[in-house]
Amino acid sequence: MNQGLYIGIDLGGTNIKGALITREGKIICKKKIPTQALAGAQAVAEKIAYLISELAQQEGHDKGIRGVGIGVPGQPDRENGTVIFAPNMSWHHVPLVQMLNLKDVPVFLENDANLAALGEQWVGAGWGSQNMVMITIGTGIGAGIILGGQLFTGANGCAGELGHCIIDPRGPACSCGRRGCLETFCSANAMVKSALSKIGEGAVTKLADIKNIEARDIIEAAREQDQVALEVMEATAAYLGMGLGNVVNLLNPDTIVIGGGVSAAGDILFSPLRDHAVRCSLAEPCSSVKIVPALLGNDAGTIGAAKLVMDKLEKKG
Amino acid sequence: MNQGLYIGIDLGGTNIKGALITREGKIICKKKIPTQALAGAQAVAEKIAYLISELAQQEGHDKGIRGVGIGVPGQPDRENGTVIFAPNMSWHHVPLVQMLNLKDVPVFLENDANLAALGEQWVGAGWGSQNMVMITIGTGIGAGIILGGQLFTGANGCAGELGHCIIDPRGPACSCGRRGCLETFCSANAMVKSALSKIGEGAVTKLADIKNIEARDIIEAAREQDQVALEVMEATAAYLGMGLGNVVNLLNPDTIVIGGGVSAAGDILFSPLRDHAVRCSLAEPCSSVKIVPALLGNDAGTIGAAKLVMDKLEKKG
Repeated sequence: MNQGLYIGIDLGGTNIKGALITREGKIICKKKIPTQALAGAQAVAEKIAYLISELAQQEGHDKGIRGVGIGVPGQPDRENGTVIFAPNMSWHHVPLVQMLNLKDVPVFLENDANLAALGEQWVGAGWGSQNMVMITIGTGIGAGIILGGQLFTGANGCAGELGHCIIDPRGPACSCGRRGCLETFCSANAMVKSALSKIGEGAVTKLADIKNIEARDIIEAAREQDQVALEVMEATAAYLGMGLGNVVNLLNPDTIVIGGGVSAAGDILFSPLRDHAVRCSLAEPCSSVKIVPALLGNDAGTIGAAKLVMDKLEKKG
Repeated sequence: MNQGLYIGIDLGGTNIKGALITREGKIICKKKIPTQALAGAQAVAEKIAYLISELAQQEGHDKGIRGVGIGVPGQPDRENGTVIFAPNMSWHHVPLVQMLNLKDVPVFLENDANLAALGEQWVGAGWGSQNMVMITIGTGIGAGIILGGQLFTGANGCAGELGHCIIDPRGPACSCGRRGCLETFCSANAMVKSALSKIGEGAVTKLADIKNIEARDIIEAAREQDQVALEVMEATAAYLGMGLGNVVNLLNPDTIVIGGGVSAAGDILFSPLRDHAVRCSLAEPCSSVKIVPALLGNDAGTIGAAKLVMDKLEKKG
């Protein structure tokens, strides 16, 4: 049994998270530093390298670091260790692995949503699942797909764009240039937009008193039976349930994990969401799926990054 | 190199097709007999057994039959060799493999749409594909999914229900009880319905002279520039393109194969279909997908059944 440890890095537009992780998926130590993406890719790479060396010097030091996994908010070139595109950081073709200049330790890149899915399947809400889709609800909606127990990334590595699947061609305009994509109905942004529009129409709601409404405010107000917030939650559950139903019909997963801030809503979201998903899927695939909130929170990405390294090294033999 | 042969059976509501197939996917001999499903499951099983013995006595006889694969129009229990449900034949829990009473030869069941996909990937339009979705357009719309080079069937074997993915919640009522499923817009049935509705509204079209309009009549009329037929084709391409775009965004396949009678339409369908699919998918996953008509026609099912047997026996060692 190899006793080495793994380093998982979750590169985000705001923070870089790093963790030292055992081969059982336990975090031994974690650290977070601001990304300051405006300083440029070189500066960010130096920060990541610094974070890695800090983590390597923790108690795992004597056991040796087996490898580093990095989740990036965009599309990685897994072969070349390059970030092809990371919109939130304005990165195009950044040779991140080369820039880290790490010696004697393998480094693997993967999309961050995929790593969150891998983490949740390994030691989180999808534990033991062979066919799982993790849907992360934030500014947009992304998905990480595990099929046959393995991360599935598609023909050129960009599978999982559930947020841009159209569920109503006459729906709202989407950032991608089309109309009625799933995320125009039920991302955190869409929830806020919907609430603001109701307020603009003169609806009476405690949300009207909040300056910069966030999805969490809507969830909070819904819990307090605010009518407008309840309507937004119901519409979110209805459309998200439709998206989930489509995933169930097409992929027949055993588990759908809902991640992102909205997933903390609890029953006020999950109870109607499950109802709508059942209504929107066929009886047979629906019978075998559970729809659950994510368990690992902000650690899913770093834990998944460690699992990625384990899987890659195992494959290499 | 083992020189044995494989028997592929494609059980349909109208005919039972059988073929003797080499391990290179070549058909040595094929036969077709009427199903006569009304005579009951036992009678159908006897017909299948007869077809298998007939095929086994062809030139492959001296080489030995390695196994039999059977495609069923419904949901198989792969472990127990039972047909759980086959709506067109009114079958519920029919222990088909046991009823065949074949000695010394392994028999494997699979859904027919899945086997068509496997056949097309092996020696047809999806040759060499690792991530392929085959969409069959008939009375409804079904899909067979190949991921990582393997048939993907989901958690309990019923993945691929693309026809019942909702693409417009305000769309037409579907046989499944919901509204706006993909197949309510662009199955062969939907095309006919749409043409009949236009005729009912008094549109001028040569289709009005045909007694029982079929999808092929609409394709034929569209080729002759019949305006109503062209409108139906355009709407079919638009909605199907939306469905394809969603598949591309979610699964990032390298190939989408379109099967079923409608796929014979050629450019009059495929040209607008590709345009709409491009418009409805993100640039990155779209860049790597080709959308092509099926090549194997009615043989896809039996050929896929032979491949299933090969894959199963290989796994067993």
